[in-house]
Amino acid sequence: MEKLELFPLKNTRLDDPFWNKYTHLVTKQIIPYQWEALNDRVSGAEPSHCISNFEVAADLKKGTFEGAVFQDTDVAKWLEAVAYSLSYEPDSALEENADEVIDLIGKAQQPDGYINTYFTILAPEHRWKNLREGHELYTAGHLLEAAVAYYKITGKDKFLNIMRKFADLICEVFHTKEYERAVPGHQEIEIGLIKLSEVTGDRKYMDMAKDFIDRRGTEPNYLVTEHMNPLWIDIFKDRNPFLPEYSQCHKPVRKQDTAEGHSVRATYMYCAMADLAAAYDDKELFAACERLWNNIVEKRMYITGGIGSSGAYERFTTDYDLPNDSGYCETCASIGLALFSRRMAQITRNGKYIDTMERALYNTVLAGIAMDGKSFFYVNPLEVWPGNCLDHTSMEHVKPVRQKWFGVACCPPNIARTLASLGEYVYFQKDGNLWINMFVSGQTSLSFEDGTMTIVQDTRFPFEGKVNLHITADRSSSSSIALHIPGYARNYKITVDSKDIQPEIEDGYAYFEGCFSDTEITVTFDMPAHFTYANPNVRADAGKVAIEKGPLVYCLEEIDNGRRLANIYIDTNAPLQEQYDDHLLGGTCTILAKGRRTSEGSGNDQSLYSGKPPSFEDTDLMFIPYCYWNNRTPGEMSVWVKY
Amino acid sequence: MEKLELFPLKNTRLDDPFWNKYTHLVTKQIIPYQWEALNDRVSGAEPSHCISNFEVAADLKKGTFEGAVFQDTDVAKWLEAVAYSLSYEPDSALEENADEVIDLIGKAQQPDGYINTYFTILAPEHRWKNLREGHELYTAGHLLEAAVAYYKITGKDKFLNIMRKFADLICEVFHTKEYERAVPGHQEIEIGLIKLSEVTGDRKYMDMAKDFIDRRGTEPNYLVTEHMNPLWIDIFKDRNPFLPEYSQCHKPVRKQDTAEGHSVRATYMYCAMADLAAAYDDKELFAACERLWNNIVEKRMYITGGIGSSGAYERFTTDYDLPNDSGYCETCASIGLALFSRRMAQITRNGKYIDTMERALYNTVLAGIAMDGKSFFYVNPLEVWPGNCLDHTSMEHVKPVRQKWFGVACCPPNIARTLASLGEYVYFQKDGNLWINMFVSGQTSLSFEDGTMTIVQDTRFPFEGKVNLHITADRSSSSSIALHIPGYARNYKITVDSKDIQPEIEDGYAYFEGCFSDTEITVTFDMPAHFTYANPNVRADAGKVAIEKGPLVYCLEEIDNGRRLANIYIDTNAPLQEQYDDHLLGGTCTILAKGRRTSEGSGNDQSLYSGKPPSFEDTDLMFIPYCYWNNRTPGEMSVWVKY
Repeated sequence: MEKLELFPLKNTRLDDPFWNKYTHLVTKQIIPYQWEALNDRVSGAEPSHCISNFEVAADLKKGTFEGAVFQDTDVAKWLEAVAYSLSYEPDSALEENADEVIDLIGKAQQPDGYINTYFTILAPEHRWKNLREGHELYTAGHLLEAAVAYYKITGKDKFLNIMRKFADLICEVFHTKEYERAVPGHQEIEIGLIKLSEVTGDRKYMDMAKDFIDRRGTEPNYLVTEHMNPLWIDIFKDRNPFLPEYSQCHKPVRKQDTAEGHSVRATYMYCAMADLAAAYDDKELFAACERLWNNIVEKRMYITGGIGSSGAYERFTTDYDLPNDSGYCETCASIGLALFSRRMAQITRNGKYIDTMERALYNTVLAGIAMDGKSFFYVNPLEVWPGNCLDHTSMEHVKPVRQKWFGVACCPPNIARTLASLGEYVYFQKDGNLWINMFVSGQTSLSFEDGTMTIVQDTRFPFEGKVNLHITADRSSSSSIALHIPGYARNYKITVDSKDIQPEIEDGYAYFEGCFSDTEITVTFDMPAHFTYANPNVRADAGKVAIEKGPLVYCLEEIDNGRRLANIYIDTNAPLQEQYDDHLLGGTCTILAKGRRTSEGSGNDQSLYSGKPPSFEDTDLMFIPYCYWNNRTPGEMSVWVKY
Repeated sequence: MEKLELFPLKNTRLDDPFWNKYTHLVTKQIIPYQWEALNDRVSGAEPSHCISNFEVAADLKKGTFEGAVFQDTDVAKWLEAVAYSLSYEPDSALEENADEVIDLIGKAQQPDGYINTYFTILAPEHRWKNLREGHELYTAGHLLEAAVAYYKITGKDKFLNIMRKFADLICEVFHTKEYERAVPGHQEIEIGLIKLSEVTGDRKYMDMAKDFIDRRGTEPNYLVTEHMNPLWIDIFKDRNPFLPEYSQCHKPVRKQDTAEGHSVRATYMYCAMADLAAAYDDKELFAACERLWNNIVEKRMYITGGIGSSGAYERFTTDYDLPNDSGYCETCASIGLALFSRRMAQITRNGKYIDTMERALYNTVLAGIAMDGKSFFYVNPLEVWPGNCLDHTSMEHVKPVRQKWFGVACCPPNIARTLASLGEYVYFQKDGNLWINMFVSGQTSLSFEDGTMTIVQDTRFPFEGKVNLHITADRSSSSSIALHIPGYARNYKITVDSKDIQPEIEDGYAYFEGCFSDTEITVTFDMPAHFTYANPNVRADAGKVAIEKGPLVYCLEEIDNGRRLANIYIDTNAPLQEQYDDHLLGGTCTILAKGRRTSEGSGNDQSLYSGKPPSFEDTDLMFIPYCYWNNRTPGEMSVWVKY
């Protein structure tokens, strides 16, 4: 198993009409806003205390720790997003800022390498004593990811060295007798260690990650018994018992067949499993990845790429249980699913993983952020009736409008780093060969010993099924270019330098060989709006259809279609009409349909139950992309519609 | 406002083929079982500690308090059920048992009259200091109800005197300066005090109840600020803030328009409000009762008479929010709704309240208990897919099978006392006149100064729309008999001594005048099985129908109809066929219907989403009464079915 490599972001300039709407928000809006938030300067918002915590831990000021136990990760995710953003929009003031934060992290590092402001300030003697809730390894993992990104893009190694020292400590501690069975409560350190190993070439970090994965869920189960240690401290004061499934330690990782528990923890673990399977050519571990990915995609994933059907415990539930109104679908979990799917594609070169990666990115991840970059959905429902999204009820996790940045915010910075690193999703490379996964306009180049290859991609995807690729290279070696053919593409036509060709297609990629000194590849395909039906085992979607066009899932909003969307029946025999509207939502393709709905009058009588069936009337329907919902007047929304 | 009176239970012998199935469980199964439970002698069940707590509080043995803060109410509800059961099945051993428990309660009473084993044993200095959570007044209310019932049926006044002494203390304490604004966190004391006032004729108890109601929700809001008292103790260790709506103290009671918060607390409060409105001829308070009742019945009640749409906080949510799978519908809340509706009927003589009372009793309350009396639903969903009723998810409050008696069990003893006091629902009386609310076979008699009237009711209701009433009286005065005409009855025909008559009908009651020395009244009516549609504002029921016959709501069960009930579409143009089955569920009318369903094969392919619509096939459907569900093989169940 040889993993395809990610593209160096610093050589990739995406400039795409669809994605620019969002990627520009990262530099213009999210990074500056979060910087203010980290420094507690956002009026009206709960203070984050992040920078202050590091200053206290570094003895630069007096005070105490404030915020959540994993508060440091906000700094880590900010630095990671900054690193990526510097690759496409250099900003010396921002970089200086980041360097100062890195200096501060260095000052807060303990002599033995340990970094964690909560434990350093509040409970130094309880280090590593509550791995279930303490989030020390989770926080370390995010700091490691940030350090690797910062090194790869800026070339500066200070942060990397700081974190390497911490990673050395982790490798030492977690091989002592006391911790030889210990695993993190919230997976993430594994990804960080793997990235560190890849960038430094030091295998011991990879080995540590593998040990964490291999120990997990084996008996005696460390996380289950950990609290018997007299130095254990109760951090969350949670009255609920610890649930092994919640942290995916209910059975050995290699024996797991179904996606269980907290969906973010799960997908982060699956990412590490995939990386490790490739690094160690571990077929058993890879088979577990395939089973888990299949279980998600075939039985536990919303059409939007959302995962996690239960608000309580933010978790997977059971096959085909996909309630549209009360599900969780955390933005971070869909990011995790995209990251896991990307790794599976890197290993297998199979385009089906890209289809799912796109499903998560184009729908749930984008829905997670408002088009002004100022508010965020943590939970991404597929059906909303604002009237019943009430605090202190079973629906309180579902918000009818996006929320401002919280004091502790996982999803917003996670969206930021995902958007800022979009180039890593668009292309893969290996040994001078190129894989094009997504249709995103922009220019990227790769340097080889014998020269350079430059690819200019030009497309109005996802609203048009046409992509122009202009590839130039000044090298003598031949290479292959693989172009992903999405599962939804129909009547695929490819021309190379204006000549129709029928390239070899393998696992969803079309392969081209050549020197590409100056080559135009044009791809056209149909991706008409169409109805999609759920498997009849999905009770929540019985009798309903969704509309998709390309990678985009569509939805009805009250502002376009009136209230009581549950009483609308779409006519699946009438054609769907696509209509591009330049002025709507920054320019979008809408889809018009015909249907019937209960007459407004028929609900006006006072009785709750009666023998009189409701009366119906014809209605025109307008669907917009799900990712754009709730950017106008708040109201009802529904992806699945009765037919 | 003059309230009709309940019938003396000791003169009422119900003997009805439909109800006997359940009422016999009370004496044969529930009361003996609970006695064992109270004494911690049920193997495999969590111990209740109830009797033991009283023994410790009475200094009869060493030990401490165990169980929930409101553990004493289990003893109270058991005594109340025993009292009612003695009225129709005298049992001297049981009565002796009850007398011993009453002696024990007396011994546990403190010198000043106080009774509560939790506070007496664990926290005497914190008496009355946490009314939000302490449940002292709630517990006192249940003990008062039991004492009044025991006195009325056995004529013994020991328990009544014990409780009167406690009530005197309550009246004193809650008129001191410190407590002059105090109200109970969980309403119930009001009902107890009102009953005590009615049986003793002492108005001060009624006044105390009225004060509790009038103080509630006024500023400064006692329950909201109570915890500032240094003697306040945190009993539930709940991390959630106190929610005034939860305890119906969000605004003055007279200003409340919508049913809010915990549905059991709410209905118990509404019962007291109705009683007080009648007792004080308080039209403003009564208007609030009407508004709240209307809000429930017109906007917040399931077709089964279930109330409380949210599992979290077991509470009302908002108008028309009635999710079928995730709602709460606690059995106790429907008992509360029946009690409230009964009081509204007593005050108004309007049969519409009886219709709702019946809806709650015949459906949710009966569904709450298994036909063997051994297990209970606390939550009564209208749609169940056992696969997703998982612990540690948002659905964990919904159980796919009835549960055994818990250590702390509110619903089972509440069902027991309700069934044992059924006679109080069937008849009302006033000044020698009689109101017949429900069709239940049996014999009852009323004594007057000038003689006695006996009524023999003979019916196979609710499976047949025919009732024979044989009334004999040896008195000279004329009286009126009012017979409830249910809202669902069609083609009502009445004969008096075989002569067709057209009696005066007023507010759902047919009125007859006469001496009734020997009179046969026969009533026949049609109550065909029919489709019922929900108001189109109820999103959860859009596109669905339910089937009702008389007071019974019907449902589909998997055992009769296969799995995937969500994929069934009923043909509302095909006739419904009623079929009585002697052998099914102890004898029941089933309803046969025609419909279509997705073919089983169409869900077998691996893909979760596809462009292929499911295929359909014709299917026969069989509905059973909702109250009988889950008495055979557990499986899916649904009340509302697509059409």
